[in-house]
Amino acid sequence: MNNDRINASIITIGDELLIGQTIDTNSAWMGQELNKMGIWVKRRVAVGDVYDEIWNALDEESRQSQIILITGGLGPTADDITKPLLCAYFGGKMVVDEGALQNVKNIFEKYIKRPMLDSNLKQAEVPDVCTVIQNHRGTAPGMWFEKDGKIFVSMPGVPHEMKNMMTEYVLPRLPAMFSLPAVVHRTLLTAGLGESYLADRIKEFEAALPPHIKLAYLPNFGMVRLRLTATGKNETEIIAEVDQLFEELQNQLQDVMVINEDITLEEAIGKLLAKNGKTVSTAESCTGGYIAHLITSIPGSSAYFLGGVVSYDNSIKRGVLGVNEGTLTNSGAVSEETVRQMAEGVKELMKTDYAISISGIMGPGGGSEEKPVGTVWIAVAGKSATVTQKYQTRYDRKRNIEVTAINALNMLRLSIVADSSGDE
Amino acid sequence: MNNDRINASIITIGDELLIGQTIDTNSAWMGQELNKMGIWVKRRVAVGDVYDEIWNALDEESRQSQIILITGGLGPTADDITKPLLCAYFGGKMVVDEGALQNVKNIFEKYIKRPMLDSNLKQAEVPDVCTVIQNHRGTAPGMWFEKDGKIFVSMPGVPHEMKNMMTEYVLPRLPAMFSLPAVVHRTLLTAGLGESYLADRIKEFEAALPPHIKLAYLPNFGMVRLRLTATGKNETEIIAEVDQLFEELQNQLQDVMVINEDITLEEAIGKLLAKNGKTVSTAESCTGGYIAHLITSIPGSSAYFLGGVVSYDNSIKRGVLGVNEGTLTNSGAVSEETVRQMAEGVKELMKTDYAISISGIMGPGGGSEEKPVGTVWIAVAGKSATVTQKYQTRYDRKRNIEVTAINALNMLRLSIVADSSGDE
Repeated sequence: MNNDRINASIITIGDELLIGQTIDTNSAWMGQELNKMGIWVKRRVAVGDVYDEIWNALDEESRQSQIILITGGLGPTADDITKPLLCAYFGGKMVVDEGALQNVKNIFEKYIKRPMLDSNLKQAEVPDVCTVIQNHRGTAPGMWFEKDGKIFVSMPGVPHEMKNMMTEYVLPRLPAMFSLPAVVHRTLLTAGLGESYLADRIKEFEAALPPHIKLAYLPNFGMVRLRLTATGKNETEIIAEVDQLFEELQNQLQDVMVINEDITLEEAIGKLLAKNGKTVSTAESCTGGYIAHLITSIPGSSAYFLGGVVSYDNSIKRGVLGVNEGTLTNSGAVSEETVRQMAEGVKELMKTDYAISISGIMGPGGGSEEKPVGTVWIAVAGKSATVTQKYQTRYDRKRNIEVTAINALNMLRLSIVADSSGDE
Repeated sequence: MNNDRINASIITIGDELLIGQTIDTNSAWMGQELNKMGIWVKRRVAVGDVYDEIWNALDEESRQSQIILITGGLGPTADDITKPLLCAYFGGKMVVDEGALQNVKNIFEKYIKRPMLDSNLKQAEVPDVCTVIQNHRGTAPGMWFEKDGKIFVSMPGVPHEMKNMMTEYVLPRLPAMFSLPAVVHRTLLTAGLGESYLADRIKEFEAALPPHIKLAYLPNFGMVRLRLTATGKNETEIIAEVDQLFEELQNQLQDVMVINEDITLEEAIGKLLAKNGKTVSTAESCTGGYIAHLITSIPGSSAYFLGGVVSYDNSIKRGVLGVNEGTLTNSGAVSEETVRQMAEGVKELMKTDYAISISGIMGPGGGSEEKPVGTVWIAVAGKSATVTQKYQTRYDRKRNIEVTAINALNMLRLSIVADSSGDE
């Protein structure tokens, strides 16, 4: 137990979280941001819209942590009880905040263009014992309370509203209030080796790490992210120390390393294409546009992604991509020859340097004895040759699509790497 | 406080959750499944890989709930402490489970095809005081413990492994152990009216609801899901009661109702197209394949979705979709005339009954004074006419893409509904 450590607790309020109508993405984002600053999220608790349970959670978490961040329970509909509760908990009375009122009025005038309701006006009421955090993205204000040297911040549950308040107001105020350590992360993205094999290969490296530097394995879809985290007082010192260890880790895992940054595979590919001045296009059957979506989720992707075809029906494979009728009849849509022609077809159609194509059976229906659900063919057409590979995935439809996208992107990456090392 | 209520607590274990490397999707799924059976998730707690904190969470949650579901902390790498802790907590000793050992061996033989490591073999060890739940999707077995009339189930954190154990083993055993109420849900998907306006329109309906029937507002991307939940002893009675209220709710909200089922917009559209025997194609610029992905995420979508073009670069809009050079030069890629030609072009190319097209600026870059980030044009080409609409979104890139997809799908839906009502 580190007594110097600054702990945070996250309390999320709302029946919709407990009954699973909403997936909590806020807590993960908050955890990341706090962690970067050297604040440890000790616990995360979700409670329903029940007065006593919210009250108890406040009591309980304030015994565990110096910073208590609360999201949810501030919407305009009647079932919300959080604001009056906070008012009672911190011993205040409700007043109208002029800034919050003006904000609600502005949003209605500019975007909603309907008359305001009483429930909207009530959003401008806050306990008089808080500092109001204005909401630049929505109508519910945030509230900052202090009690016994601890900080409590209540924010709306809408992710982009909460993030805006955290980034603009909450996070910048924390370093002045707490003595925070320096924290440095270094992340290596690997592909091709499972978690336990990686751990086995670097077990001596891991065993030799000093106690203030930790190694985490973060597996996801056949890739594993390895993260070194160093904590200390002197930032310059721990940076030097962690950089040396990170160098060593990269040397040991060179053959499975994708990139030495904490970015996604699609970002890594974007950088690689941009650096080499190359372009790519996609021809997707079973992934239905998901790979194009991943590539274009990166800002600036228009520099290297020209376009794609989702050739779901065989008529599109033939008519738009130029796959042979005979190939589709004899080998089928899920075959090496079909994906080869799809990749070469879209590369020609869109005049790109590279093209990826995918055809497979994602389930739950559509499988046969010869080609069971999960059978996937992928092709990458590159500078000189087209590479093909068969995969067998074994999950549900959603995950099969996700895994297949990662497999295809990694094949593309390997082709680019092979071509560009040939250039040197 | 309802004393008859059966409560569950969910404990998730793992530093990766607290530092935000992993988004917890398990809890939402578990909450949904339990809720359907009449079990109320009272609390959800996430703790790190810290012995005392896991122990305390077990103590604490067993005071709140009869069912304690634990996920995570069972991976093969060294930092996992959960299994020995459970062994000590329930007073057992570790033994090798033959079934689990055989399962690990099978998975290595069939899928991984590498020699097993000690860390893999250790996954077959379990406390001798638990009932083992075999893992049909991975190597870590689940563990079922009973203590003082309460149930504790420990499962891996990998979502599809956990879901398989819950569906095949855990959930089917609960009704025999607890006296559960009947719970009935009815869900209405609406579009076009915000949460507070909906609430205002049906406030009398809501005020007149009996105490055992609750109404929840679940807003998401400009759509709001309204859910009636009835709880009672006699299932037949509450079904009759909730169905009558649901009928009334549908009557009051007919103009904004998308569908009277708990499904997504893309599923609702799929049903509509299938029912009318119609097909659709897509031409996406700024959404980069995301709409095609949403449509094809639905099993069986190949019956009505033929394909799409992601025309990211203007050369693809011209060369593949046939957009006029002059239109692109004079009106620009983000314009009414361009999306009209894109929709009509892809409809012709893929020979579908309907086509959607989208062109816009998703940010963060690419905006101008005349066309700021968030400017989006959408067209739907239908039976007789092409409908166009301009939108202004105001979020980050990811959310702009998501909101735009919902807007486009809803425009498609309205076109199909208009056309098919014209048929009658």
